[in-house]
Formats: sequence, C-alpha cells, structure tokens
Amino acid sequence: MSDKPLRVGLAGLGTVGAGLVKLLAENAELVSRRANRPVVITAVSARDRTRDRGIDLSGFGWEDNAVDLAARDDVDTVVELIGGADGPALALAKATLSAGKGFVTANKAMLAHHGMELAALAEARNAPLKFEAAVAGGIPVIKGMRDGLSGNRVQAVYGILNGTCNFILSAMEREGKPFDEVLKEAQALGYAEADPTFDIDGIDAAHKLSILSSLAFGTKINFAGVSTCGIRNVASADIDYARVLGYRIRLIGMAHQEDGGLFQRVHPCLVPVSHPLANVTDSLNAVVAEGNYVGRLLFQGRGAGEGPTASAVAADLVDVARGEFGPAFSMPAARLADVPAADPASHVGRYYIRLTVADRPGVLAELTAILRDLSVSVESLIQRGSAPDGSVYFVLTTHEGPQQAVTEALARIAALDSVTSAPVMMHILDF
Amino acid sequence: MSDKPLRVGLAGLGTVGAGLVKLLAENAELVSRRANRPVVITAVSARDRTRDRGIDLSGFGWEDNAVDLAARDDVDTVVELIGGADGPALALAKATLSAGKGFVTANKAMLAHHGMELAALAEARNAPLKFEAAVAGGIPVIKGMRDGLSGNRVQAVYGILNGTCNFILSAMEREGKPFDEVLKEAQALGYAEADPTFDIDGIDAAHKLSILSSLAFGTKINFAGVSTCGIRNVASADIDYARVLGYRIRLIGMAHQEDGGLFQRVHPCLVPVSHPLANVTDSLNAVVAEGNYVGRLLFQGRGAGEGPTASAVAADLVDVARGEFGPAFSMPAARLADVPAADPASHVGRYYIRLTVADRPGVLAELTAILRDLSVSVESLIQRGSAPDGSVYFVLTTHEGPQQAVTEALARIAALDSVTSAPVMMHILDF
Repeated sequence: MSDKPLRVGLAGLGTVGAGLVKLLAENAELVSRRANRPVVITAVSARDRTRDRGIDLSGFGWEDNAVDLAARDDVDTVVELIGGADGPALALAKATLSAGKGFVTANKAMLAHHGMELAALAEARNAPLKFEAAVAGGIPVIKGMRDGLSGNRVQAVYGILNGTCNFILSAMEREGKPFDEVLKEAQALGYAEADPTFDIDGIDAAHKLSILSSLAFGTKINFAGVSTCGIRNVASADIDYARVLGYRIRLIGMAHQEDGGLFQRVHPCLVPVSHPLANVTDSLNAVVAEGNYVGRLLFQGRGAGEGPTASAVAADLVDVARGEFGPAFSMPAARLADVPAADPASHVGRYYIRLTVADRPGVLAELTAILRDLSVSVESLIQRGSAPDGSVYFVLTTHEGPQQAVTEALARIAALDSVTSAPVMMHILDF
Repeated sequence: MSDKPLRVGLAGLGTVGAGLVKLLAENAELVSRRANRPVVITAVSARDRTRDRGIDLSGFGWEDNAVDLAARDDVDTVVELIGGADGPALALAKATLSAGKGFVTANKAMLAHHGMELAALAEARNAPLKFEAAVAGGIPVIKGMRDGLSGNRVQAVYGILNGTCNFILSAMEREGKPFDEVLKEAQALGYAEADPTFDIDGIDAAHKLSILSSLAFGTKINFAGVSTCGIRNVASADIDYARVLGYRIRLIGMAHQEDGGLFQRVHPCLVPVSHPLANVTDSLNAVVAEGNYVGRLLFQGRGAGEGPTASAVAADLVDVARGEFGPAFSMPAARLADVPAADPASHVGRYYIRLTVADRPGVLAELTAILRDLSVSVESLIQRGSAPDGSVYFVLTTHEGPQQAVTEALARIAALDSVTSAPVMMHILDF
C-alpha cells in the first residue's frame, strides 16, 4: 500500500457532503485497502462554517470560496456537491480540471449542460472527471454503462431516474389520492422539495437521461434534445385505468437510437405489470439497458439520499486513488458522435389515451371516425366511470403506430364540442 | 486513438468463444472507440480445428495446445474459455500471467480453487487478471462489487447465481411438476447439462459465491468454507406450501460476515414474494448487495449463454485495452483478510420445516413438545394435504432462532416412530 493518501477537497456540506465525511471516517480501513492508499478529506467549503451538521470539521482546512479548494496544495481531488448548472459549481469544476486535479461530482444539471466541455478539459489535462453520483444515486449505473456494457451496441437505456416522482406515483397508486395531495405529503416527508419543479416536471430525469444516453450510444450529450413531460397531469383516474389494463404508471426516462436519430424522452409511461420497472416502488430508482449481446440488464437501488449518494462519490474517489480512470464519457469527447435528435412525433409506439366527453348519443361514433380517418388502430377500449361534471371517460390503448397520427387525432378530437377536457395521452413502454 | 490494437489469443471455441468472435467483429467500431484502440483476435486454440462453428477462423493463428497462446508474439492478452479448475486452463493462466500478459477468464471453478495464487502472480507481473464472465454471466456484478461498492462495508451479498436451478424451480412452480420431470425437460431444452451435478447440487453457485464474497468483504477466497446444498430434494409440496405462506423457493447463494466469521451458504431458500429475488424467473440471474451506505442494490440479467457471457468477456478486454485495471480482487491478494468460516450451525435465522408423519392421535403433541424443549419458536403452522402413503404433512415456519436448535429438534423428531420420512428444512431469506 502506498503511504501517500488521496487528499480530497470537499465543496458542499449538505446531506450528501456530511454523509461523505461520515463514510470516509467509518469505512476508512476498508476504503484504504481497496484504494491501496488512504482517502482523506483535507479541506472543505460550504456556505456557513458554524452550522451544526453533526460532524466535526475541526480537522479540515476551510475555504469560504469553494473555487479556492482547487488551488490548495493539500488537495489532489475535489468533490463538488454544491449543485446548479453554472455558478460556483462550474467555476470550481473548471479551476480543478485546469489545475490537472481530479474532479468528482454529483451535479447532473452541470454535466447535462457543460459535460462535453468539462470532459474535453479533463482529457487535455489527463485529470479524472467522475460522476457516478449524478445518475441514480447509489446505483453504480455510470460504471455499469461505461465499463460493464462496453462490448455492446446498446439498443435502449431507460428507467426510473427520479425518486420523488416515483414516490408520488407509488403513493397515488397505493392510496388512491390525487397528485396535489400526495405532493404535499411528499413535501412534508422530505421526499419532495419546497419548489418541486425540477423533479415533477421531469427536468432532473432529463438531465440524468442525457448523461446515460451519451454513455450508452457513444454520442455527445444533448440535453436540449430531450423531450420532457412531467407527472403533474397524471390523474388518479389514469392510474386506475392503467391498473385495469394491466399497467402501472411510472415516470420513465428513455433513450434509443433509430434511423431517424436519437430519441430521448422523459414522460409518464404505462409499464406492463410483468416488467421489472413495474415493481420499482417508492423512492427507488432503476435503470434498464438493452444490449445487442448482453440482452436486458436491470440495475436497481436507492437513487438519492445521504448514504447512497455518498457511496457513489466514495466509489469514484477509490477509482481516482487507484489511478483506474480514463475518458469521462467512455471515449474521448471528440470521438463522441454528433447524432441528431429524432423528431419526437416520428416515434412509433403504443399509446394510452383518455378522453373526457359529454354523455350523449353519437359521441362514440364521432371519436371512432376520427381515429379511423387517421389510421389509429385501437387495441382496447374502456368506457366506465364519469368525471365530476357528469362527463364520461373514454379510455383506449392503441396498437403500434406513429405518434404523429395519434397527436393529430387528439387535436381533432379536442376540437369537438362533445369533448369537455383536454385529451390525455401517455406512452406505453415498448421494450 | 492509439493505432496499436489489443491482440487477443482465444482459448476455447465453444458457444461463448464463438460468441466473442462474433461480438468483436459486429461491434468492432464501438468497441474500438470505447477502448481507444482496436481489440482484435489474432490467434485461437480449440480441441478441433475443423468443426463448423459458424465463424471464419481463417484470419486467426492456430495453436493445438492452448498453453502455447501465452508465448505468441502476436498475443497481448489471453481469453480462457476452456473451463475446469485445473488442467489446461490453469496451465494457460499461469503461463500467460507469468509472461506478464493479460488474462481474461469465465472460469469460476479455477478462480474458486486457485484465484488467490493467480491474483498474486498477476500482481507480481503487473498483469491484468479479469473475470467478469465468471459470475452471473452478462451482469457486470464483478465490476459492480469491485468498483461500484468500494466505499461500503458490505453487510451481505446474495443472489440467484445458477440459471439452470432457477429455470427448474420456476418451471416446477409454474407447471406443478416434480423435480425429476422438469430436470429432464431442462436437459432436452439445453438449460441443463447431461451431467447436471455441478448445477443442481449447488457447486457452480458455490464457486461463484466464493468469488463474490472475496470482493464483498475483502477476504481471501474460501471455497471450502461454502456450505452447499442443491435443489434435488425440493419437492412440489414444498413449492406449494411456500406459495401458501407467501414465499417462492430459489437456490440462493449468500455470504455475510458476523462476529463468528464468514457465512457462505448455497441452499434452497424461501424468498418472500415481495423481495426482488422472488420475481427473478427462468434462467435469469440476480445479485443483491447490501452496503452500509448504499443500502440494497440489485443487479439482474442473463447469467449464461453466448451473448451475455461474450459481453462480459468483451467488457474485460476493453478494461485491459484502456489500461484501466488493478488488483483482481480489488486489493492486493496479500491484503485480503483471512477470516475463518463461520460454523453453519451457528446461524441465527428463520426456517421452514416440513414433516411427514403418521395420521394418528398424539403426533402433534409429540412434535410440539420437542420444539418447546429446544426453544424453537413456531411462527406459523399448516397441517393440510397428505403424502401418497397416507401420512400427513405438517409444515411450520419458525421465528428467528439458532439453526442449531432446529437441527437438534429435527434429529429428535426424525427418530420418532410416527415420522415416516426424513424432515425437510429450508432457510427463509432474512435480508
């Protein structure tokens, strides 16, 4: 074993930062055996030096400005747990990598926006850039994609990437409560933030998906190319109908490459109860990768929180301490392909549609005529239950067909007098 | 990208070997981008040069003797797919590593018996020794344990490590057929070998468990310390009772470290239907690791076969080509701890017991008196159904308690006149 420790500067002492301090103390002996040298925090930075975090900071150097960690002589590698796509996190990343030092981060927003630039900088300085904690928390899915699937042409990567949404959808499913009520409960329990936008509108999942998809397909990160729809509009009625039809609703981030380009989509999705993702409940995360040799792989675990995220950061630090690292996105950034985003409307799949219509004769004929005219082929159909205003729900699933046709049909249907609320459309998981 | 390819010598051209040849051809462009250099097979060895394997060998050098691959100037790394704990596979491993060349293998038997010696040899020569394909086929669980969980004290690692057994147990469960009949069907379908001993007696799973457990706990491989029981004695009745009680029966390999030492056990186990392993059916494999920071992680996928195993071998080759490798068992072999095997009887857990007793008054009193005398606490009890000879089944599950007491109770019960067949005892999964 080398006597020379890996000296870590830690920026950000929130839940995860405090968790990392605890982990490196509690598991020090095992970590140093595995890393072949000690991994020790030498300096920290956070907004408030005096706040009680339940950890002793007296042994660490302190920087008021996180970016100053990069220049410290007693720091070999920086861990960034500040968050935010730009600002101090990005300044720290650039300063650290420019100094040729290792940079370990949990910051998916920053990677989604600046990952390619940071990867190129890391390569130029031969510095490690690691981000296991940025996707799916404790689940080693970045290593799984980068190192475990390196022999495969990946056909699709998809999963449950946001624990808050999964917690909410699971609770709606279990308790039959509406979205708004469950969201409030999730906030009270700490599963959702006061401003839940990034989570429930699918942005967080889209950040993560853009990173996974770069690793899966050998393409440049293209966050702008992710078509994103969150879970605000998932109604209890949809969850009930999905159940009747043999599905559960999950917020799925999915990427797959087709002739038309790279599909990256985040949206609520009907998952067949027999699919492993249907059994992923509460705040768990799970990622499925389908490779042309390996077949279907599933990785499942805790996607957030102090322990799991600290675990992912620590694993990256061990890689750095061992010297076992290479290009951040598997291959040099310059060799990542620049694949155009596919037009979401060109997707061919199966769809769930819920229409809210006036309860009067002839409506069914109007609707089915439109579907026929656009060649939308109906697989199953339920008319059962009614909306609070006396309208009736009309629920159908389609056979495989172009999304374009469904979208067009729904636009025409929405224009009918007999349709009393905006139609709801969701994808059915087709892997 | 480097122009210098990684030149591979391939020993063994069975299903997996042929799969690797296909993979490296079909996915060549992606693999070379990810490895930052081409990965090419230059020479092969197999028993029969002329057999039609559906692949073109004309571009490869040939060795009649696999061990001669190690000395070839055009071979940087050897892939061993011969199998067998000793013999040519071991000779090839030693020759390759002694020459300071990389060695990639799917050979769990050899690693279970000689892994420590080979790891020390690899370290002495600074040569990569990689074996992702040896455990759970295509699932990157070796990398997951070695690299993904390196920050954790692992509390337990366990899973479904043998696809043949899982296929048989799933079929028994689904079709209600007895073991012998399902085994014959599995053999006809190619899911079980003509001599199925290694699979159904749990030896293959024990090989794999001993490897996983070294990575999980930082201990030396101790295959002799695995207590192993296969699935030959799992009766349809047990599967039925398990179902009634809310469980499914799986062959589980499990390792956990306690004060008394390292438990490594392979045995049929009642898995609660709510546990992710209960949903792993047919020939799938799955591994669960519980870490003190990450919590519970699940890795699931295809544990055998041409594509998945070739995928795992290819991933190791990419690691070698990248130069991203270190000690085979995470830390230098000399630093792996020498933890004594725990006495299996000292296990504290919950148990399933099926007794076959004569249908006459007083038997129940005899049985329960013995359980009481040995402080075996009964959690649930079913008396229902009867054996072909008119005996009745008496099924119970225990509260948590020492295995010793259960074993002693069963010995006393077996000696009763009223007991007409040997008692059956299985563990209940307690993680």
